[in-house]
Amino acid sequence: MRKIRNVSLISIGCMLVAALSLQAQHKNKPLHIAQQGSFAVGGTMLREAGDFDLAQPLEASGQTYHGDHAYVFYQVPAKARSYPLVFLHGAGQSKKTWESTPDGREGFQNIFLRRRFPIYLLDQPRRGEAGKGMVESSIKPTADEQFWFTQFRIGNYPDYFPHVQFPRDSASLVQFYRQMTPNTGSFDAQVVTASVSSLFDKIGTGILVTHSQGGGPGWLTAIANSKVRAVVAYEPYSGFVFPEGEVPAAIASSGLFGALRGTAIPLADFMKLTKIPIVIYYGDNIAKEPTTVWNKDHWRSGLEMAQQWAALLNKYGGDAQVIHLPEAGILGNTHFPFSDLNNVQVADELSRWLKQKGLDK
Amino acid sequence: MRKIRNVSLISIGCMLVAALSLQAQHKNKPLHIAQQGSFAVGGTMLREAGDFDLAQPLEASGQTYHGDHAYVFYQVPAKARSYPLVFLHGAGQSKKTWESTPDGREGFQNIFLRRRFPIYLLDQPRRGEAGKGMVESSIKPTADEQFWFTQFRIGNYPDYFPHVQFPRDSASLVQFYRQMTPNTGSFDAQVVTASVSSLFDKIGTGILVTHSQGGGPGWLTAIANSKVRAVVAYEPYSGFVFPEGEVPAAIASSGLFGALRGTAIPLADFMKLTKIPIVIYYGDNIAKEPTTVWNKDHWRSGLEMAQQWAALLNKYGGDAQVIHLPEAGILGNTHFPFSDLNNVQVADELSRWLKQKGLDK
Repeated sequence: MRKIRNVSLISIGCMLVAALSLQAQHKNKPLHIAQQGSFAVGGTMLREAGDFDLAQPLEASGQTYHGDHAYVFYQVPAKARSYPLVFLHGAGQSKKTWESTPDGREGFQNIFLRRRFPIYLLDQPRRGEAGKGMVESSIKPTADEQFWFTQFRIGNYPDYFPHVQFPRDSASLVQFYRQMTPNTGSFDAQVVTASVSSLFDKIGTGILVTHSQGGGPGWLTAIANSKVRAVVAYEPYSGFVFPEGEVPAAIASSGLFGALRGTAIPLADFMKLTKIPIVIYYGDNIAKEPTTVWNKDHWRSGLEMAQQWAALLNKYGGDAQVIHLPEAGILGNTHFPFSDLNNVQVADELSRWLKQKGLDK
Repeated sequence: MRKIRNVSLISIGCMLVAALSLQAQHKNKPLHIAQQGSFAVGGTMLREAGDFDLAQPLEASGQTYHGDHAYVFYQVPAKARSYPLVFLHGAGQSKKTWESTPDGREGFQNIFLRRRFPIYLLDQPRRGEAGKGMVESSIKPTADEQFWFTQFRIGNYPDYFPHVQFPRDSASLVQFYRQMTPNTGSFDAQVVTASVSSLFDKIGTGILVTHSQGGGPGWLTAIANSKVRAVVAYEPYSGFVFPEGEVPAAIASSGLFGALRGTAIPLADFMKLTKIPIVIYYGDNIAKEPTTVWNKDHWRSGLEMAQQWAALLNKYGGDAQVIHLPEAGILGNTHFPFSDLNNVQVADELSRWLKQKGLDK
């Protein structure tokens, strides 16, 4: 017993030293940024008929409106690696998702800059600073945050899941709620895809990292643009694309979005996804079997669809992997593994994969 | 003649060397960033009556909605100066306004990081990544860009003003149009002021830099919060605040917003603005006398109001200065001097003022 206790104390000591050194590494070293800036990319334009009249400048005649572009903020660190990481947020989110975490720690933006990757953070068309969309929209404040707390698997409100990797203080939770930002036009996967593909045309070969609803446009971008060298998807749900005739049966779920269905695309398009490495991560507190606990069951259907999808890609010669983080010993993650309390561990897991695939040159 | 020509050639040579060295300085030196991140600040919250029911999670009962915060992205350079610069954008803009210019050069974000100022870039409440507002809103694509081209004094569309400091290529103009982003709730100076004031409470003493419509909330923030150590305003128009009983006569204008009026506030509030240094900059192509050229006349009324306002502040013991850039030999600026082609010169002018006021320690 005495010995075991000592060993434990030593391990705790080592963990503390490791934690402190990580903290020191992350908090104290300045970032060396060779270049940073922002721009709009993609989008379309309308021009009203007639001529612009300088004396009637509030008449639409002859005037233009540009919209449906993405907004991009980029940073290139000194001694950068070859492939940039292009980050596409999920539903209700903006590029903020990848920045500081709700409790103020470094998010994937800083973590991967420190690991010498150029980073591109997008606000997709009709979101955040890319607010000019080509469609009309109305926005209404709607009290729904306890729903999102639950849907995003922080817990079953008001309970946090035991050992969940989300801070328990109310200030962090408020930051999490405030990082949501509304659509300024309906979500359109084709519009998002077009803008992300335009970004790859501009910057060249890179790695696309998506979250949640960004997953669908992510697959479509990789099909549309061969400059997408790999895709990393955190918790995709909708938008899995299967060859015509091979769409699997819908997966029933007690989740609020009902049964999950795949989307049919031509086999030739599907085959393009077999040419690049793909990794998909899911966090914790996802049901293994159907259940009436709707949040756990919602993500069960997503995880199952991802597994079927990866299996089919691999059957066709692809290189797709689904990593359910708890099975890799990484426990307690919400729908936002990249900003959870253990996000350095989650980043380590991604770094390991990038290295394994030769994507960190 | 011969001599004069040689002197000219030498000066041109010197200018070229200076220009090249500036370019080298700005393009090649990495930025050393000690810290960077983002957060929400300020805002309010509503909670619907009743209890949240986990089985009816789409019912509003008992749920919350947080909104009317600002979004803030910050960077603190290594060996930072004491006072951060807090940047508040104008109407229809986001923090993008201070980032890369429409033609891809460095904006005030990078320029002042290189000059070792910590920078805070805001998306005001109901704009950009701070899209969750507490009011309903509708958004409609409206062809109005030739109006903005003219209103913002790039020229009288389709003509560019001679020697205007705006790039002539169409790609830059499209970037300029795409950097606009709509309100996701009506503009409310009090709401903006509350969020900016909360930011100063969080970060401590600093210098507030506003643009255009941001000017009004800028004055109100400086009244509300003594941590605002100075205000720099680029081309404010509305929102000038005068002591009750001392609001000047409205300034008639052929501009599209009509006559410009000051706003009455208690003398005690006005007096707070006499305790800090204030500088206001206006660009070129503003009328000296009333004219029917509506854009030039709109800004004439703004400039005249600013001059009356500064005179009154100084009469009450203040330290307010209005700098009409052409009179300081800085020519051709649009409504966006900080992103115009000569924005390094515009930044130099600000650096000179900050040094003179002891604000660059």
